[in-house]
Amino acid sequence: MENIANGVWKYRWGEPEKHTPTTYREFEIQHEALARLVCGGKPPIAQRDIHVARSSRGVRIELPLGADEQVYGFGLQLHRVNHTGRKKMIRVNSDPVADTGDSHAPVPFYVSTAGYGVFVDTSRYATFYCGTNLRKGDSASKENVKRSIGTSESELYAYKGTDVSRSVLVDVPAAEGIDVYFFEGPDLRTAVQRYVLFSGGGCLPPMWGLGIWYRAYSAARKDDVMKLAAGFRKERMPVDVFGFEPGWQTRAYSCSFVWDEERFPRHQEMLDRLYEMDYKVNLWEHLFVHPTSPMYDALSPHSGDYEVWEGLVPDLSIQEAKRIFADHHREAFVDRGISGFKLDECDSSDYVHSNWSFPDVSSFPSGMDGEQMHNQIGTLYQSAILAPFEAAGKRTWSQVRASGALASPYPFVLYSDLYDHKVFIRGIVSSGFSGLLWTPEVRQAASAEDLIRRVQTVIFSPLALLNCWRIPNPPWVQVDREKNKAGIVMSDYESVQRICRELFELRMSLIPYLYSAFAKYWQEGLPPFRALAMDYPDDAAAQQIDDAYMMGDSILVAPLTADSSERTVYLPAGSWRDFWTHERYEGGSSYSFAYGLDRIPIFVKDNAILPLAVPLQHVREDAVFELTVRMYGDSPKECLLFEDDGNSLSYREGRYNWVRLRPGAEGAGEVERRGSFEGMKYKIKEWVSFK
Amino acid sequence: MENIANGVWKYRWGEPEKHTPTTYREFEIQHEALARLVCGGKPPIAQRDIHVARSSRGVRIELPLGADEQVYGFGLQLHRVNHTGRKKMIRVNSDPVADTGDSHAPVPFYVSTAGYGVFVDTSRYATFYCGTNLRKGDSASKENVKRSIGTSESELYAYKGTDVSRSVLVDVPAAEGIDVYFFEGPDLRTAVQRYVLFSGGGCLPPMWGLGIWYRAYSAARKDDVMKLAAGFRKERMPVDVFGFEPGWQTRAYSCSFVWDEERFPRHQEMLDRLYEMDYKVNLWEHLFVHPTSPMYDALSPHSGDYEVWEGLVPDLSIQEAKRIFADHHREAFVDRGISGFKLDECDSSDYVHSNWSFPDVSSFPSGMDGEQMHNQIGTLYQSAILAPFEAAGKRTWSQVRASGALASPYPFVLYSDLYDHKVFIRGIVSSGFSGLLWTPEVRQAASAEDLIRRVQTVIFSPLALLNCWRIPNPPWVQVDREKNKAGIVMSDYESVQRICRELFELRMSLIPYLYSAFAKYWQEGLPPFRALAMDYPDDAAAQQIDDAYMMGDSILVAPLTADSSERTVYLPAGSWRDFWTHERYEGGSSYSFAYGLDRIPIFVKDNAILPLAVPLQHVREDAVFELTVRMYGDSPKECLLFEDDGNSLSYREGRYNWVRLRPGAEGAGEVERRGSFEGMKYKIKEWVSFK
Repeated sequence: MENIANGVWKYRWGEPEKHTPTTYREFEIQHEALARLVCGGKPPIAQRDIHVARSSRGVRIELPLGADEQVYGFGLQLHRVNHTGRKKMIRVNSDPVADTGDSHAPVPFYVSTAGYGVFVDTSRYATFYCGTNLRKGDSASKENVKRSIGTSESELYAYKGTDVSRSVLVDVPAAEGIDVYFFEGPDLRTAVQRYVLFSGGGCLPPMWGLGIWYRAYSAARKDDVMKLAAGFRKERMPVDVFGFEPGWQTRAYSCSFVWDEERFPRHQEMLDRLYEMDYKVNLWEHLFVHPTSPMYDALSPHSGDYEVWEGLVPDLSIQEAKRIFADHHREAFVDRGISGFKLDECDSSDYVHSNWSFPDVSSFPSGMDGEQMHNQIGTLYQSAILAPFEAAGKRTWSQVRASGALASPYPFVLYSDLYDHKVFIRGIVSSGFSGLLWTPEVRQAASAEDLIRRVQTVIFSPLALLNCWRIPNPPWVQVDREKNKAGIVMSDYESVQRICRELFELRMSLIPYLYSAFAKYWQEGLPPFRALAMDYPDDAAAQQIDDAYMMGDSILVAPLTADSSERTVYLPAGSWRDFWTHERYEGGSSYSFAYGLDRIPIFVKDNAILPLAVPLQHVREDAVFELTVRMYGDSPKECLLFEDDGNSLSYREGRYNWVRLRPGAEGAGEVERRGSFEGMKYKIKEWVSFK
Repeated sequence: MENIANGVWKYRWGEPEKHTPTTYREFEIQHEALARLVCGGKPPIAQRDIHVARSSRGVRIELPLGADEQVYGFGLQLHRVNHTGRKKMIRVNSDPVADTGDSHAPVPFYVSTAGYGVFVDTSRYATFYCGTNLRKGDSASKENVKRSIGTSESELYAYKGTDVSRSVLVDVPAAEGIDVYFFEGPDLRTAVQRYVLFSGGGCLPPMWGLGIWYRAYSAARKDDVMKLAAGFRKERMPVDVFGFEPGWQTRAYSCSFVWDEERFPRHQEMLDRLYEMDYKVNLWEHLFVHPTSPMYDALSPHSGDYEVWEGLVPDLSIQEAKRIFADHHREAFVDRGISGFKLDECDSSDYVHSNWSFPDVSSFPSGMDGEQMHNQIGTLYQSAILAPFEAAGKRTWSQVRASGALASPYPFVLYSDLYDHKVFIRGIVSSGFSGLLWTPEVRQAASAEDLIRRVQTVIFSPLALLNCWRIPNPPWVQVDREKNKAGIVMSDYESVQRICRELFELRMSLIPYLYSAFAKYWQEGLPPFRALAMDYPDDAAAQQIDDAYMMGDSILVAPLTADSSERTVYLPAGSWRDFWTHERYEGGSSYSFAYGLDRIPIFVKDNAILPLAVPLQHVREDAVFELTVRMYGDSPKECLLFEDDGNSLSYREGRYNWVRLRPGAEGAGEVERRGSFEGMKYKIKEWVSFK
């Protein structure tokens, strides 16, 4: 075993494949940040306990798993958070309808409550059997307790646990050798941080990226767009980013990457007008290149041997293909003010009613096959789109529908067409284990209640997105699609709009706190959105929770869904304060909470300091946040805010401050700034104590 | 290309794997029957049009597919019948929730409307891309028609067809070589017959197997069983086979294969009493062997390296393991009168809430790995269970939840826990293309209407099964599970029971017709239940139908589901007669039909002769069917009935008759018997003409 960074170990067996996630690594291991983490200095799994074998199928890896260990990770997992006793296949796929491991962003990485992480460096559809089976004979030696006869499937197939040590079996197809990386703890959370820092650290959004996003109707024309944009400002609905769906292009399935001058005549004028109104503009696309695209001929020799939707599949692992793709995006879009993209359809599908994407047996000029390309294409695509922004010295905050291993440095947030609200909440809980970001976007809603409950979840996520591609008017005036298209408003739309506005404003007030949580993600590898099991790995109740999560270090979010205005919230060890009533609750217990439509269950750690900004309508470059600083409890602990220009890449050269908020004399607080950023993004409006 | 039988061609590329379906073939190619089919004498696909390549992933095969060709097959496929434009993975799996190819009985075989079949001899999870993608550049040369912008997923992802020749791409993991078999037509139906005869021909059920089956409550005890059994006879509800669910064994998950003397004291007395009442008895089991089983120690050395549910996974491809397994079944069950088994849980699962079965990376003493074993275990298990019946010279009619390639000779009918009624109907339509049999079993029902509509479907299937494992009382007295358990009957149970009785009697009256259709399956390889696309491959409307099917040569069945008492039925070319009203309809058109709860849309070919028996309560060895022979139309065509002892294997030695029913003088009919069976199973009661 090779110690490749502080607390990171590499075990090589045989001759690994040429195309793996580390082959396409773009960001360096963050050695300095890793060195700042406590480290035991020995591999969490001893080499003698690792068993690897090769067959015609590929490589089989057997790793030990203690009877008590709980396993998390595998990227964005929408159907389950705790994977103990389960089988997970690492295969990129849209609309994963069942708990198979298929995901928009599957990652061959897991962490254990025993305080370590394991990354298998492969782009294959590897399968992880997490203690699913005992070895032959292990049950014969156990005491055999007779069970009652089941009369339902759930009784028959229930996972019954075990008191015997098991293994994690990893099935890596096609490979003849493998690199396995082990990440020390001492605890689960630190193991995750190590994996993120090994990936290159977390991304830092521009501050405007944390505002409200609105994506407009797919068939919208220029006038429709301008009417919506003016409407938000007029009605004081905070919106930072305006998103165009497929209709902006001359061809969308596959893509021309060219503005449609019929729907959007003089489109640059329209864009400039939107910029004047302080909107950032985000464009939908996917990466399949239509024959009418100006990139077609140049990309053709660098593309796979099968088409998707009449379009080329460019091999973006080839530098020349990436350059052609990035250059077009820079010239046509980034240099003309476009702030980001929504990278759709890069995930492939086996589960929608008409499956699509290139075959796993495709071949690509780089030598990758379709299977490898499927699991790599999400990050390669992010890399190609990020390039023009990096070249221009600008940050982007974008969306992507496929991602994977080592992806935490990419400033892209995942989304999905799966739309069950509980599934979407679970996505926030699960994605952090692999250093990924996920938005539970709001699209259609079954009712005004459903709309509001979904908005409440999305404002506590990395991207506060309303994706209204199927409706011409905002959902807060009409949730029913047909009525929305007919321009009929809901009778109670004013109160629905008011509640939405207040929730958007709540999001805007949380930007400084949230931005600072992202700065920790960048510097320390700590995901801003985390499962309770990550912060409380030894808490048996927290281990199973998939419907509540931490946002930053101080806030616990427990969303409600439309089926009930009441829910149970488990609060882990320590004291907690209700965000709304400030009431104190002792942790280690579950409580039932009921909230009206305008509130969501949020809890703040007692003795935390929480800055809330006066909500802006949008975050301009010169924005300054006026803070009301809440100080909870008898001995509030220092709170750190990250401060920089919020837009450029100068933070990487150290042009930032850490602003410390702490209790001062006479119930007020005091502020200390450290760092080399000369501007000032935060201004204290008031200090408020809740003893 | 090697011509290995009349109209059957073999193409070998590289060095095929050691463990494939043909490796474990138990039944010989039916050369004589194949020789009776019309044959063009040349391979349906020329060798120069077949492209095979090898990579580290395995073997990739490319076969031509014309722009107009429609593709069917791939075994039991519950979510789609016509696979053109789709990707299908051949992986055995229970509860396939989406249209991925996963199935209880996936088969690497497809047929085309162009009149040929292709079988890829592999036990791997092969994937077939049926014209899903064009080759790079093919779209650039097409006229590119601009499409409107989609505003819904169904618009975006709709399969748009093509006017360009495509290919079928086959992805065979792990293999270094492959055998591909091609089956000539001239038409699709004949290609299917060739595949079935290549597999060894179709199975022939015992006549009692075509009666009504009832599986009792999982937690039933001896008294409960006897009460049910006596009740059916008393209330004149025809039942031939009584099924025991898991509770009969001392251990069920995994299995002990030993009667539980606590729930069933003196079980042999109980069985003998059931036999006296003319019941056949069928026992539930699966093949995972519990440590307390008497077979455990003997099977242990012949088992895979991982357990399932605390039990061994015996490698039944090893002759000694098969012998141990078969001997126990013979001594403990078959020699004691048990007529068959229900082989559960042999399919593995990735889709239920707790996935189970052995890992794909398991290894088995034969050298098979888990992947190969998963796709083979269904037929290996059927083989081991069939062995004691063959040794005893008896037929069985049994159930199995996993099957695969070359399985048509096994007298086992597939079933599933997926329970959507339309999905279940589709299973009947799809399974015939690969020579498989499927029962849309009736379990719970949402309402009395749902129960009756489901019974109507199941009586027009290979196995007329009510699987009441979750309810202690028959569903016709109470469909609600909780009320059923509490012994509360429905207010209208008498009319529900009456309708069920009449439907059971309808099934009983169809036994001679159905049994004869099975004899054609055995002799000619023609599946008794078939899609309309099999009999009318050139009919564009028939190509898409997945909710109606042929039963035998003369009857078209178009089931209703609980959501409507009306439906559209497409009748292909020719004249058709309503089974109930005898009204004539011209084919080549669709009609809307409405039926009350006691009727199901059934159509008989005009000029067919259809024998209907006076319904028996059950089919004893000495049963004689009294026939009312319906003669439709002006020039009824001869109808052939198969006649033998209905129980033994003597039909294989030619001890059977073909009984010819044809029009005679003066509106009556005449009967001619040819063959060497000396008994007489059919007696004419009357001839009825419908001009």
